[in-house]
Amino acid sequence: MPFDSSQTAVVLGSGSWGTALAMVLSEHFSKVTLIGRNIEQCAEINGFHTNANYLPRIDLPKNIEASVDYKDAVDASLILFVLPTSATRSAATELASIGISTDVPLVSCSKGIERGSGIRMSEIITELMPHNPIAVHSGPTHAEEVSTHLASAAVVGSTNNDLAEGLQSVFTTAYFRTYTSDDVAGIELGGALKNVFAIAAGIISGIGLGDNAIAALVTRGLAEMTRLGIALGGRPETFSGLSGIGDLMVTCYSPHSRNNRVGKALGSGETLEEVTERLGMVAEGVPNTLSIYEAARKHGIETPIIDAVYQILYEDKSAQEALVDLLTRDLKPEMG
Amino acid sequence: MPFDSSQTAVVLGSGSWGTALAMVLSEHFSKVTLIGRNIEQCAEINGFHTNANYLPRIDLPKNIEASVDYKDAVDASLILFVLPTSATRSAATELASIGISTDVPLVSCSKGIERGSGIRMSEIITELMPHNPIAVHSGPTHAEEVSTHLASAAVVGSTNNDLAEGLQSVFTTAYFRTYTSDDVAGIELGGALKNVFAIAAGIISGIGLGDNAIAALVTRGLAEMTRLGIALGGRPETFSGLSGIGDLMVTCYSPHSRNNRVGKALGSGETLEEVTERLGMVAEGVPNTLSIYEAARKHGIETPIIDAVYQILYEDKSAQEALVDLLTRDLKPEMG
Repeated sequence: MPFDSSQTAVVLGSGSWGTALAMVLSEHFSKVTLIGRNIEQCAEINGFHTNANYLPRIDLPKNIEASVDYKDAVDASLILFVLPTSATRSAATELASIGISTDVPLVSCSKGIERGSGIRMSEIITELMPHNPIAVHSGPTHAEEVSTHLASAAVVGSTNNDLAEGLQSVFTTAYFRTYTSDDVAGIELGGALKNVFAIAAGIISGIGLGDNAIAALVTRGLAEMTRLGIALGGRPETFSGLSGIGDLMVTCYSPHSRNNRVGKALGSGETLEEVTERLGMVAEGVPNTLSIYEAARKHGIETPIIDAVYQILYEDKSAQEALVDLLTRDLKPEMG
Repeated sequence: MPFDSSQTAVVLGSGSWGTALAMVLSEHFSKVTLIGRNIEQCAEINGFHTNANYLPRIDLPKNIEASVDYKDAVDASLILFVLPTSATRSAATELASIGISTDVPLVSCSKGIERGSGIRMSEIITELMPHNPIAVHSGPTHAEEVSTHLASAAVVGSTNNDLAEGLQSVFTTAYFRTYTSDDVAGIELGGALKNVFAIAAGIISGIGLGDNAIAALVTRGLAEMTRLGIALGGRPETFSGLSGIGDLMVTCYSPHSRNNRVGKALGSGETLEEVTERLGMVAEGVPNTLSIYEAARKHGIETPIIDAVYQILYEDKSAQEALVDLLTRDLKPEMG
């Protein structure tokens, strides 16, 4: 399924990652339309070719346009979902209502599972538009670095190999490399689960532990992500790849990650209410922890790190107690 | 094989890691003797209970003593090798010559493979003292953090499960957790191979790339380490553990790693001669790269990152060219 340069693409979601992905796609499509919700932002993108609240100091290519109208997606040859996980169902419902062609591939680029149903973003999209080809895209990719053309790599997944290869070519530039995979569930689950471990890594820093403890936490986090990810339908090797350990590392080691910052504040003794008020936003990992904790219980998987984060966030357990316990308690075989 | 607190242990090698491990063991043995080569350092440890060149501002437990005489190892119930890889053969030869009991377990804690023979440190020790029980200990453990009692975790490996469990108990304190494994080769190979990737990660920073590129490099490095490590006798799952990805991460992300600093200087345009002169030492990864490159060729394993580091260090290839090529060149399936 090759795309050609006369075609157009649409990105639903005009935050930093949606905008950075639009920049990548703009090298391959005649036009990329960012569809957001904010009229001022839309005017800024169309009038000044900037999206300063999300990507300060970046000039956008002229063939990126913005809109607040989902109807502008009707002629697109490719549509990306780059939305908060809580907004994906309503966006897919709205897109389905405008009647797009069933030939148009839909690509989910969001990281999380749905609260309540426990399903993945690509499953929500397929539930609402069952006849469209579906794919997912994920990896260790800070938007700020992609938008400044710093070398980055990611992975695109589809059970349709032609689609995966077609998407690989439009998700690749001189500075951005995309690999292919057919493990859709594994790719999505790496991104969905990592935010909980990023909160845990932040807590570790916040309580004053060092690099050894972070490395142990991320390593044990990979084992836990793999165990739960397999139960939820992913393949083990995917969690050792870019969308698994790659994304887990970049999030756990980055001081820029919101989840990491929330964890650090909790580790320093702030309450969840205090840190949420101070940062002016809720990090995705906070509600994610609830849905992931529920999924782990439902499948009977042992998840000591996820449980510790859950207890800290939702049961007022002391961060120090929960995390130090975790790193130093019972002795056993590493792969037991 | 339980140890008891009336026994004594010996650590061959009085650098920062040898000293930090002696501190861990000192909680379980009546006496731990650090055997080094430097008489002044020996007098400092015995007289002032400090080893300031290696662990500044740390007071050593009073039951840690120092010596420069290998004969002081003759009554020990446990002997650790914590030496540069190039010094392990001569130390094992010297120890064998004093005639220690064949009951005494020997534990290799060094990271590298021997130049020329391509064998692991535990294999060298067993070659020279074939009747002694052998084990290995490794993990993501900066000595500075262990010596200040910051929570850390590692893994001890032996094919003798009783020995592994006995060692686990003496390598464990309130702040230090050791897991067991029977994959001796896998544990040693993680530590041996990671320094080459740490140089590559340093180069990535040195040429001005960001977190996305480091995460991609470490992820692809894990795949490469696993592929080569399996060919050299390790088990795949071990490379996803503390001695594999754990140690790889802590080394690639730490600005304190010597290998990382060497890589960073190379990425900034310094030559190997300039950086070696400026830092006043050769990082272990530099000679390691030669022996590991040779091992990869011998086993016919594809190792693009190791090859790039080899070419930069030994064939005057430009760092920028070699590494950027690596991150952005051919497109293929992630797990292909």
